[in-house]
Amino acid sequence: MRIVVLTGGIGGARFLLGVRAYAREVGAEVTAVVNVGDDLYLHGLKVCPDLDSVMYTLGGGADPERGWGRAGESWTVKEELAGYGAEPTWFGLGDKDIATHLVRTTMVSAGYPLSAVTEALATRWQPGVRLLPATDDRLETHVVVSGPNEPASSADLDGGQRAIHFQEWWVRYRGNVPTHRFVFVGAETAKPAPGVAEAIAGADVVLVAPSNPVVSVAPVLAVPGLREAVVDGPAPVVGVSPVIGGAPVRGMADRCLEVLGVECSAAGVGGLYGARSAGGLLDGWLVAEEDEGTVVPEVTVRAVPLRMTDEAATAAMVRAAVELT
Amino acid sequence: MRIVVLTGGIGGARFLLGVRAYAREVGAEVTAVVNVGDDLYLHGLKVCPDLDSVMYTLGGGADPERGWGRAGESWTVKEELAGYGAEPTWFGLGDKDIATHLVRTTMVSAGYPLSAVTEALATRWQPGVRLLPATDDRLETHVVVSGPNEPASSADLDGGQRAIHFQEWWVRYRGNVPTHRFVFVGAETAKPAPGVAEAIAGADVVLVAPSNPVVSVAPVLAVPGLREAVVDGPAPVVGVSPVIGGAPVRGMADRCLEVLGVECSAAGVGGLYGARSAGGLLDGWLVAEEDEGTVVPEVTVRAVPLRMTDEAATAAMVRAAVELT
Repeated sequence: MRIVVLTGGIGGARFLLGVRAYAREVGAEVTAVVNVGDDLYLHGLKVCPDLDSVMYTLGGGADPERGWGRAGESWTVKEELAGYGAEPTWFGLGDKDIATHLVRTTMVSAGYPLSAVTEALATRWQPGVRLLPATDDRLETHVVVSGPNEPASSADLDGGQRAIHFQEWWVRYRGNVPTHRFVFVGAETAKPAPGVAEAIAGADVVLVAPSNPVVSVAPVLAVPGLREAVVDGPAPVVGVSPVIGGAPVRGMADRCLEVLGVECSAAGVGGLYGARSAGGLLDGWLVAEEDEGTVVPEVTVRAVPLRMTDEAATAAMVRAAVELT
Repeated sequence: MRIVVLTGGIGGARFLLGVRAYAREVGAEVTAVVNVGDDLYLHGLKVCPDLDSVMYTLGGGADPERGWGRAGESWTVKEELAGYGAEPTWFGLGDKDIATHLVRTTMVSAGYPLSAVTEALATRWQPGVRLLPATDDRLETHVVVSGPNEPASSADLDGGQRAIHFQEWWVRYRGNVPTHRFVFVGAETAKPAPGVAEAIAGADVVLVAPSNPVVSVAPVLAVPGLREAVVDGPAPVVGVSPVIGGAPVRGMADRCLEVLGVECSAAGVGGLYGARSAGGLLDGWLVAEEDEGTVVPEVTVRAVPLRMTDEAATAAMVRAAVELT
């Protein structure tokens, strides 16, 4: 059995722990297709937050409390960078984490595609699933906002609007700026990373992790050919709701959905993805017990316990998702 | 009064503490022209060991025990790089130090010349002397050796010889390989950094720090126009011997002099620099009491206590050097 998971970072990483546990149980192979829209250069280093969250979490090196970055992390370099007044200061890189970015940046500068770099880094972490970036090309999530005027690097748009990198919107402003829309810069010309289309074509099931639908899953599907590979492919597609009882399990999906004018509910997100039979994404939609009775037209909906409290609970969710097909 | 010092890293940095103390006493301005031949890229970071040794030492941030790098340094990034198997492993970068290299690399990549970057970094450290790299251009000291065959990156030369970066020769092999000569790669086309020629032309005295004559001072003088500015300039030139009683005070000057076939003695190094009146560098040559009686043809030699045990002792040396003119 072959499972493909479309995923973002932290929540997706936790979901993948359950996918891996389920896969070991049934003898399945797992390929994770990971969002790169959050990627950015900081202090000259190529940082891939979602790939790293997945890699560290599956490799046993993630900080379980904070949810991102490395366990036992230290912040010496960050403090020293602040000593130089080096910008930006709103995104902190841990010392252990920086080693990952140094290796990645060196390899990318030497001409290796991100997928090859990810594979090389994974030889250390042995995540137990195949990690693929959605694309090797630049695809960055930017956010069109009104004010603040601060980021001199941001692109000026008509009507006082400006586009800032997603990380600046998310980490620096916590989404607390008038926000108009999300843009996936570079998406038009991006191609799926090597192996992505093949993995989807050969999958027995495609799972959509309970990641942020707007800024984690959407930029994966924004890669031309990738969405088509899923929608036109042979495998059933089952999504897992990131919203339980009207609130995101973690992160700011509510804020992102608000920008799109979509209700923050299991039904809202399910409807945003849409039924595959109607040109959308989903065959099945797994929601929480709290959301029993959720209806998404032409999509098979099932309610199960949906809290990823531990690996066994998450594996049970994954089993329910797979069996929904 | 204006003092220019030609200098390498660790020993030169300690000497500059004395120059600064002396300059404060007499109200002089100091410009240090620093060797860049040791500079290299490690893990994608531009590292300038001599500039940093001088900057950290004069800025009060150097490790006094180790003699290089930052006080209170930690090594998390280094350990993590080793976890990835990232090469080279023979040159360790400390966490605090890495912040300096990140800022420098970001600025150099953005197009700033090394001299401007050095000035920017120095705004934090306030070294109290003007720090100038000898050149903004690439000038790297390489070492022509026979074997080992290991560094695949080294240039193959005739007769089984190969050229390795000075740092590899110094740090990795501790000079323990058959060594033929030193080469200053890029020297032919290098230009003095902005301000260097002007500082030398306006100097009341040029001091040659007790740095390694072969791999610290020579690459400074290898910049076309720089040696001429010193030799043809108005200021007297006084050198301070890095060798006391036939042994280098620190470092491997003995090994380097051996490669050149020059005796490791105050007379040997003085003779290597040569008398300015005979096409060489020196008007005066300050040697240790132990080397009383040293003769360098056509150079004024004086013997004084030459151990840089503390700032006051070093300042007394500097005074003796200045008064030698």
